[in-house]
Amino acid sequence: MRLLLTGSAGFIGSHLAAHFLNGGHEVVGVDNYLSGQLANTERLLGRPGFSFLQADVSAGLPDVGGPLDWVLHFASPASPPHYQQFPVETLMVGAQGTQHALNLAERHGARFLLASTSEVYGDPLVHPQPETYWGHVNPNGLRSCYDEAKRYAEALTMAYHRARGLDTRIIRIFNTYGPHMRADDGRVVTNFINQALAGEPLTVQGDGQQTRSFQYVSDLIRGVARLMDVTYHDPVNLGGTDAITMLRFAEVVRALVNPDLPIRFVPLAADDPRQRQPDITVARRLLGWAPEVSLDDGLRRTAAYFRHAAAAPPPTPARPGPGRPSDRAPA
Amino acid sequence: MRLLLTGSAGFIGSHLAAHFLNGGHEVVGVDNYLSGQLANTERLLGRPGFSFLQADVSAGLPDVGGPLDWVLHFASPASPPHYQQFPVETLMVGAQGTQHALNLAERHGARFLLASTSEVYGDPLVHPQPETYWGHVNPNGLRSCYDEAKRYAEALTMAYHRARGLDTRIIRIFNTYGPHMRADDGRVVTNFINQALAGEPLTVQGDGQQTRSFQYVSDLIRGVARLMDVTYHDPVNLGGTDAITMLRFAEVVRALVNPDLPIRFVPLAADDPRQRQPDITVARRLLGWAPEVSLDDGLRRTAAYFRHAAAAPPPTPARPGPGRPSDRAPA
Repeated sequence: MRLLLTGSAGFIGSHLAAHFLNGGHEVVGVDNYLSGQLANTERLLGRPGFSFLQADVSAGLPDVGGPLDWVLHFASPASPPHYQQFPVETLMVGAQGTQHALNLAERHGARFLLASTSEVYGDPLVHPQPETYWGHVNPNGLRSCYDEAKRYAEALTMAYHRARGLDTRIIRIFNTYGPHMRADDGRVVTNFINQALAGEPLTVQGDGQQTRSFQYVSDLIRGVARLMDVTYHDPVNLGGTDAITMLRFAEVVRALVNPDLPIRFVPLAADDPRQRQPDITVARRLLGWAPEVSLDDGLRRTAAYFRHAAAAPPPTPARPGPGRPSDRAPA
Repeated sequence: MRLLLTGSAGFIGSHLAAHFLNGGHEVVGVDNYLSGQLANTERLLGRPGFSFLQADVSAGLPDVGGPLDWVLHFASPASPPHYQQFPVETLMVGAQGTQHALNLAERHGARFLLASTSEVYGDPLVHPQPETYWGHVNPNGLRSCYDEAKRYAEALTMAYHRARGLDTRIIRIFNTYGPHMRADDGRVVTNFINQALAGEPLTVQGDGQQTRSFQYVSDLIRGVARLMDVTYHDPVNLGGTDAITMLRFAEVVRALVNPDLPIRFVPLAADDPRQRQPDITVARRLLGWAPEVSLDDGLRRTAAYFRHAAAAPPPTPARPGPGRPSDRAPA
């Protein structure tokens, strides 16, 4: 197969590219490094079957010679500090970016997969969240640039499927962690690991009783690959099912990395979901899929990566906006 | 003032244009006639201060000479049969269309007003709906091409306001009716009036116990104009507050137009909201606004318009897609 993958320099994109290269497929990676990392491309360059285009999918995709079997649209800032720094760009990669990727798939007669997110559920009122839950999202809050962009991307994908007959897939990715994340991702896994590695107090938001369910990245990649092998157009949740409070999670990271550290409580971020956990009944039934990597194992591998990364040069900084300081959200 | 108004050939756009022309202002109307009507432009052409550009705001706006004080973005198919016929175009006018209009406002140092909709509340679980209610919308259902496009448009408008300092307004328009609607609008007001005028049975969906709250178009226009005179960036509901069941509404129309007609029950449309009614506390407090035209008065004026229109040439048919039959949703 030959696949085009937007967001190939992102955390998940880089693992997905490696997965398909391992399987002997060709991957055309696309990234503009708004939040992707040069180091993730460098790991892939030189591998047989990999080619890379530095391009902003929101502005359009350059002509890709040869056939394409799949277009996988993973490009987007995904962590709150990144998408709130680039709210307009985040909205654009959900709308114009998704549409350029859909049009490319249509032109090539390729299938299309959208990386959507558990953020379409917002701060859910139903637990766990099945795909049929419509979500609870503030349409104009600080997080709306990401949440609404992804809801729009789902609606657009389904419109191309229904009205134009495109063969599409939609995954909703829940909290995922592992090597190749940005050290400054800004979400809890890297925050805790970096704090622990640096010997700093672990900062827990609010009272720490809000929960998350984590999946290790290799579990996610396995689920994506399986969904590409079946014909199913509605969204599919892929995520870890074991809810853990943020306080307990801090204790696990601390125990793994540095048992002597204190835990410090800080204010809860605006619109932060109190609880989110996937109902993975569809993925179990349709794909025979469930997460397999334990939190302890996954965190050990991730901490090892960051320990090593701390010895290497720092990651690419989040790229400044295209010459317009006003692109950035107020602090 | 000089205003640019997208969707000027639409039902609400045409009234808004007339309102500002009446006040001695200049209006640059823009429409591509996807769902707008030529007759609505013809009513305005020749009036002092009015000019018209036939253009698709989703593809970009041509250079508008001279200063602009306001950009008012009202372009979009708005009735389910129209937006479901053009799902991709509807999504695009919410994303690319809104962004082109925002960029135009930014370039001209103009203020910007987004026509959003009660559809952002979807099938609400809270009654009546205050602006702080986040809504209950299926992100990938048949109506999502409209609902998610408008939610996205709100998120983008707020991103331009927050990150770029644009002076913006957002109105959420609830069911509105009056002269200049398309006869084939497909929603209940024109359906009932046309059926009654044609001497046909009035078709009520489901059991007819779902409710709507209607406002007459002149009330809406008054609210929009008032919001433009204050500084307030969060969404503002504008709508009628007297809920009426669809069965009762059919009886009112029948009594006004043709008391002898039967009422026939037909299946409920997919994802059709069971109940929707605005909380207009914000508009009352901020604008001193409330609807004033009674349902009887408004319906009489609307029926008179359609009686007259029935004697005139038929309205412009909904324009076919741009050469792509596959742009249309399956029936």
